[in-house]
This record gives sequence, C-alpha cells and structure tokens, in this order.
Amino acid sequence: MEILEQRIKKDGRVLGKDVLKVDSFLNHQVDPELMQAMGEEFATIFSDEKIDKIVTIESSGIAPAVFASLALHVPVVFARKNKSLTLPENVWTADVYSFTKQTTNHIMIDHRFLSAAENILIVDDFLANGQAVEGLLKIANDANANVVGVGVVIEKTFQKGRQILDERGVRVESLARIKGFENDEVIFL
Amino acid sequence: MEILEQRIKKDGRVLGKDVLKVDSFLNHQVDPELMQAMGEEFATIFSDEKIDKIVTIESSGIAPAVFASLALHVPVVFARKNKSLTLPENVWTADVYSFTKQTTNHIMIDHRFLSAAENILIVDDFLANGQAVEGLLKIANDANANVVGVGVVIEKTFQKGRQILDERGVRVESLARIKGFENDEVIFL
Repeated sequence: MEILEQRIKKDGRVLGKDVLKVDSFLNHQVDPELMQAMGEEFATIFSDEKIDKIVTIESSGIAPAVFASLALHVPVVFARKNKSLTLPENVWTADVYSFTKQTTNHIMIDHRFLSAAENILIVDDFLANGQAVEGLLKIANDANANVVGVGVVIEKTFQKGRQILDERGVRVESLARIKGFENDEVIFL
Repeated sequence: MEILEQRIKKDGRVLGKDVLKVDSFLNHQVDPELMQAMGEEFATIFSDEKIDKIVTIESSGIAPAVFASLALHVPVVFARKNKSLTLPENVWTADVYSFTKQTTNHIMIDHRFLSAAENILIVDDFLANGQAVEGLLKIANDANANVVGVGVVIEKTFQKGRQILDERGVRVESLARIKGFENDEVIFL
C-alpha cells in the first residue's frame, strides 16, 4: 500500500537490527485518515471472502481493526489482556509471548462474542514472530470459528511469523512488507 | 444521544448497584457504525473549540477517540499503560487508580506527542469516579497543553467524576448520562 510505505519511510524509526517504531502514526499517536484508508484496503483485499466479524488484540490492533470493521460492515472484537490472577469464566483464552517485551500475556475473548461457524478476519498491526496471531488462531479454533484470513498492517518478512502461518495454510495479506533494514533505512519487499 | 441511549437500554447489563457492562458494543465487541456516529457527535458538540489533538487512554477509549479524531481531522494519542518496572525516558506520566479493578495503572505519553500550547480534547468511554480523566489532566498540565474539554461516551452522574471536573472548571460533554439503576434498568438523566 503506497501511502503506508511512504509514511513508514518518512516517520518510521529503525532501532537496532529488527525493530521498527511507528508510534507517531500507528500505535501511540494515530493518524485517523491513514487508518481509514487501511481499513478500506483490507475490505477490498478480502472482498471475495464471507466475513462475519473481525478479531484483533488490544491495544495497537484496535485502530486499524475498527476501520476495517466499518468498511466491511461487521462488528469487531478485541481480545483483552487479562491482568487479574483469577480468570473470568466463560472466556476463550490463549497465552501470547512477546519477544519485544519478553513477557507472556494471557488474552481472552468472551464466549458471547465468538461463536461456532462464524467467519472471522484477524487484523493486527504487526506480523513478526506470529505469536499474537497464533494466540488468536488458537482461540478461534477452540471456538470452532472459521478464520478466513489475517490482515496485517506491517509484516517483517525476515521473522518467522509468515512462515508459520503459510505452513498452517492461513491466508495472510499485509499492507506493507519489510524484508530488512539497511543503514537504518527500511527495505520493502 | 438517542441511538446510544437506545443501545444501552437494549444491550447494556446492570451488575450490582453501580456497574454497567457495555461489552457487546463498546469495550470488548465494538459496533463500528455506532462509534462513527459518536465520533461525529463529539465533533459537532465541540465544533466551537479549536482542537489540535485528541487524547485518550488504552484500550476502551481508542475506538470512540479514533472516530472523533477522524471527524475533527486531527491526530489522536492514546496514553499507554506502562507494565515494565523501568519507566522509559521522555514521557509524561500519571497514576490512575481503577475502583473497578482495584489496581493502579501508570499511564504515559511520549513527550514527542504532547506539546506546550496544543489544544487537546480528552475522550474516554466512561466517566465514573474521574480517575482516568484526572490522570490525563495531570499529564496535559505537566506538558503545558491546553485542555478544551472532555468528551465522554457514558457518564454515571451519581459518582464523583463530574463534580471533580466541574470544580476544576473543565468542560465535560457526555453522550449518555445515567443517574442510576432501578430494578436492573438504566435510568437516564
């Protein structure tokens, strides 16, 4: 997606060998016009699929996901990170390890908001090692929901997430695909 | 806001004396058309103010805030809850106590995304005891930003948040105002 790649080139900050910070327009400060354009792009890309609901994870997935849900005229559910020691009843759960933060989050979705045979599109801000998407796939599997695909804003193709999802036969569509960084510059695929 | 009040009556669930659950359309599953309508309503209500930026807190404030930001054509910043023990440098911070969860969250906004003399509109999903808004006001004050008002989706007028903000002279506009619950029914002001 051209305007997204341009924005990443202009405002993204490369940290170290494999971290891209996009906190000025995606996951701390948010550009709503860009989110709207991305949501419409996801709707166009997945227009051949029957989609009943979008599923994402708080917090950074919410902004792109709500605009995809608006463009597709379906509700969106965001999996919550559970901070309490006692797990609520009647929730689907998964553990998601964050390589960046080196912590494990317990994510959950209420049974009322994910049902058997629902066709869901997963939307998230980044695809790197694939842990977040794997957690949502586990929840969808437990709920007997049908995952029609995964929409990702920024994919880092040099990390293992894409390979894991390809091997599982999951359709993955990314708005920007980054194959690496050279001299703190982003190299798109 | 009529369609919001109707939705609360239809899908809100009253728990105990003072809790209203709206997780089927606002803060777990999200109705994007309702969020869009609410965003446009905030833009109309505050159309007489100069607004440079919207500020909210992750996660439940994000959906209403991004649509307000789209309608007002300004960026939105969401304060992040800091989970790590070491505080990043160059952030504005505040402690926000949650009466519901009985925990304190350390919230933060990067210095790059909140500047002196910026006119900000705070948007959040609930106004109950006012702790979240007070945290954002503290951050705005530390940053020397100018708070033009607070836009709230659902205000519980029987809790102390409104009084605190009135006493501080902050303009507060709520899309739905609840004065109490009777026989598990919501009574609007």
